[in-house]
Amino acid sequence: MWLRTSCDLTFDITVPTPFILMLRPRSGAQQWIAREEYSLTPSVPVVEFTDNYGNLCQRLVAPPGIFAVHTVSDVMTADFVDRAPGAPFVEIQNLPDAVLSYLLPSRYCESDHFCAMATSITAGQKLGYDQVAAIETWLRSTIRFEPGSSDIPVSALEVNARQSGVCRDLSHLGIALCRSLSIPARLVVGFLYGLAPMDLHAWFEAYVAGRWYTFDATQTVLKGGYVAIGYGRDAADVAVYNQFGPAVYPTAQGVDVQLIEKEEV
Amino acid sequence: MWLRTSCDLTFDITVPTPFILMLRPRSGAQQWIAREEYSLTPSVPVVEFTDNYGNLCQRLVAPPGIFAVHTVSDVMTADFVDRAPGAPFVEIQNLPDAVLSYLLPSRYCESDHFCAMATSITAGQKLGYDQVAAIETWLRSTIRFEPGSSDIPVSALEVNARQSGVCRDLSHLGIALCRSLSIPARLVVGFLYGLAPMDLHAWFEAYVAGRWYTFDATQTVLKGGYVAIGYGRDAADVAVYNQFGPAVYPTAQGVDVQLIEKEEV
Amino acid sequence: MWLRTSCDLTFDITVPTPFILMLRPRSGAQQWIAREEYSLTPSVPVVEFTDNYGNLCQRLVAPPGIFAVHTVSDVMTADFVDRAPGAPFVEIQNLPDAVLSYLLPSRYCESDHFCAMATSITAGQKLGYDQVAAIETWLRSTIRFEPGSSDIPVSALEVNARQSGVCRDLSHLGIALCRSLSIPARLVVGFLYGLAPMDLHAWFEAYVAGRWYTFDATQTVLKGGYVAIGYGRDAADVAVYNQFGPAVYPTAQGVDVQLIEKEEV
Amino acid sequence: MWLRTSCDLTFDITVPTPFILMLRPRSGAQQWIAREEYSLTPSVPVVEFTDNYGNLCQRLVAPPGIFAVHTVSDVMTADFVDRAPGAPFVEIQNLPDAVLSYLLPSRYCESDHFCAMATSITAGQKLGYDQVAAIETWLRSTIRFEPGSSDIPVSALEVNARQSGVCRDLSHLGIALCRSLSIPARLVVGFLYGLAPMDLHAWFEAYVAGRWYTFDATQTVLKGGYVAIGYGRDAADVAVYNQFGPAVYPTAQGVDVQLIEKEEV
Repeated sequence: MWLRTSCDLTFDITVPTPFILMLRPRSGAQQWIAREEYSLTPSVPVVEFTDNYGNLCQRLVAPPGIFAVHTVSDVMTADFVDRAPGAPFVEIQNLPDAVLSYLLPSRYCESDHFCAMATSITAGQKLGYDQVAAIETWLRSTIRFEPGSSDIPVSALEVNARQSGVCRDLSHLGIALCRSLSIPARLVVGFLYGLAPMDLHAWFEAYVAGRWYTFDATQTVLKGGYVAIGYGRDAADVAVYNQFGPAVYPTAQGVDVQLIEKEEV
Repeated sequence: MWLRTSCDLTFDITVPTPFILMLRPRSGAQQWIAREEYSLTPSVPVVEFTDNYGNLCQRLVAPPGIFAVHTVSDVMTADFVDRAPGAPFVEIQNLPDAVLSYLLPSRYCESDHFCAMATSITAGQKLGYDQVAAIETWLRSTIRFEPGSSDIPVSALEVNARQSGVCRDLSHLGIALCRSLSIPARLVVGFLYGLAPMDLHAWFEAYVAGRWYTFDATQTVLKGGYVAIGYGRDAADVAVYNQFGPAVYPTAQGVDVQLIEKEEV
Repeated sequence: MWLRTSCDLTFDITVPTPFILMLRPRSGAQQWIAREEYSLTPSVPVVEFTDNYGNLCQRLVAPPGIFAVHTVSDVMTADFVDRAPGAPFVEIQNLPDAVLSYLLPSRYCESDHFCAMATSITAGQKLGYDQVAAIETWLRSTIRFEPGSSDIPVSALEVNARQSGVCRDLSHLGIALCRSLSIPARLVVGFLYGLAPMDLHAWFEAYVAGRWYTFDATQTVLKGGYVAIGYGRDAADVAVYNQFGPAVYPTAQGVDVQLIEKEEV
Repeated sequence: MWLRTSCDLTFDITVPTPFILMLRPRSGAQQWIAREEYSLTPSVPVVEFTDNYGNLCQRLVAPPGIFAVHTVSDVMTADFVDRAPGAPFVEIQNLPDAVLSYLLPSRYCESDHFCAMATSITAGQKLGYDQVAAIETWLRSTIRFEPGSSDIPVSALEVNARQSGVCRDLSHLGIALCRSLSIPARLVVGFLYGLAPMDLHAWFEAYVAGRWYTFDATQTVLKGGYVAIGYGRDAADVAVYNQFGPAVYPTAQGVDVQLIEKEEV
């Protein structure tokens, strides 16, 4: 399907503030960006670079006053999310080198603490995809999804203690559980068509049977319409914006995802 | 200045043909892409990747029939080309690792054959920027610039024998001369505002005093308005399109560069 | 100075166990490896790769039984640790891209929680090197160094609560404090000549004035003799060994560092 | 089999001369380095880095006088060279991104000129491995192998004109022929057990059926015992040493490869 995604962030800046933004979705194996706009008001010099995970990041210093970022993309993405019941676990020794870092514990995914719990949740499952599916189902039925309840990332240990969280929190717990079973898992931040209430979204991917599969415990049924902006080990790696100096929060944030006709593209 | 660049390529394909395109200019230290379109007619699956030089490349298989590629970009680029007379040569041992490969001979820049000639052309010059400027001046006065005279890249040796060439040819010879003096040099392919006749353009950069500087022997005076699409050792690395199987040439090619008002962006 | 470092690890394996080892120090800007041995008993197939941080890692599957890893290196390293009082803080916008990821919170360095504490510890210091030196001094006088007290990494928050720790723990807290001040910091694992009791060692580096500087709160006075094996954001990235499946601990571990004459090399 | 390889290079230096050496074989999927020595006389500071192809390179400035490089490695490598008659051609669209650059013409492999010749040599062969095997056979029977006949690399076009060459020359022609058929091919420089007369060696690899296969037109029958030092597009990328400034050649060069017992390792 063809989607038009947009994101508007507005900040009220008091002192010159360095930002690293990650707001340019990138074409790859799963999606194709046919049109894109990225505007900054006021206009400031920007330098773009690629991070360790292949994400495009934009560096700039926001001047005092109202500072607005506006992005729009027309993206071709899959109509359906691939599911693969029974797809096998990949032995560590057969994983590609580039996937290995997704096995390690990270800031918000203390996988070194979840081995017993993950083993219990996935008891009786075939090793691989079915384990991750059991984790996704367990998250859906156990951790209450409360969109908009939190601005600050919390780690999997705390999500598990609270038994509730935003999309990012559920993903962090899912990732920690997967990694504790030696299944590589990563966080994805992006857009989802039909998300209610509409906002930026986060989900997770697990590596089984030689490729990454999408999982999302916030949705009862996974439909297509996912557009990835960035990938990483957890929210520390894939922040839509990182800002340095005195904390600054968006005074306004608007996200929109529309289905468009291919002819409009 | 803000420029709107566009490129249209049309091919008449007889058998399914794999292509690698390099037509998405990338934001970086020198330019910022504020808007961009990339369309393919008919629409086919595309996978994008980053090559060894940091260029974004698009892989696809063109189906039989008319196949058209259309790209448009709104780009902020410098009003002036930086010049730095007297800027010093960087000793090999002080070059960044990533720059070293631009010292080696490459397909179209047989730098291993030009040492005596480069020494003669740059006699009396201070080592560094002034040597490259002398090479640029020599190229401008010696090698006749004949836009549109050649479709197939030829190497620096042959350019020197012919004493004439297209923009790419002059650049190849300039690069070979620089490298023979142990000055890193690379080819840039992109757009130039005001180029006459308008077409895709190629120029070269040399690394002195800790950064890359722009040189272009095809222009009497270097004004701003350069938009880079790709960087590489020579035309073998930065082809706007590489196509595999029976040779296919564009049946139509259109390039346009307009000055735009920032408000239009 | 020339050092001969050795490390012996012995495991008692019950089921075939995948390992990722990081035991090959690498030549670079700071040290030169003139001789090296790396043996495995029994001999098994090994594949070596380079991780995201540039470390050489060895992948293998250890067979059931006694499994021993033995490494020896002859290394040229600096006689003195560079100190640079007054060296300035690097503004975020001027940091190299490759350094940015060392600003982010990570598994064992929750820098997002230490801003107030770091500000207090470094009150009155010139921004940059002097702040890091104040953190190092504070660690030395506040957090009790207890070598050998812990096998399992704990995070900066917990180290701060316990007020004691091993070399890795003090480093994690130092790193978290630096990053909370927007100073890039990373963990280094390796050898230190004269360490008592002799063991593998961990220290940290901070990026100020355009380069990495060494800090080590476990030593009263920093002498030379540091040999780096690996770099990373924290202990999750630079484990000397990562092992998958049922936990396995070394049954024996021997580390030795000797001063050698250059003629022996 | 276990091999002990050694290489000694001696230069007579007149002015301080920057060198980039590539003399440290690297462990990988095909070989394991169990012991290694790398000494320089006189001892000078060295910085090591990894180039675009994954090779370890050493940068240094050689001082005036006799300058000697001595390397020894104990390496586990395969007893046999894998052969795979019938292994299929990989369609361009299915090649890994990292392999694509080995399709392009390069300094010494002008693949853009060899399409007709390669088609003729491989007439009737199944696409893929069998084409490369036909090229290897054709080289063996057509281009006279004259070890030691040349110090300066020449390109495939000239090798084909001369109808003779050293191991590197035959490889360059083989690579150019493969690439002209859209088969990725690369040059390997290293050691070969049993080579007569003993020297550094060069051969080529072609990518078919999802992996690289070894080809060597200088040997009547391919036995095992290959130890790779470096990989690249051609000899411009994989020079054992690159030296800058006035040309310097080794006054002495010694290469040795011995079969060793595993117990000696």
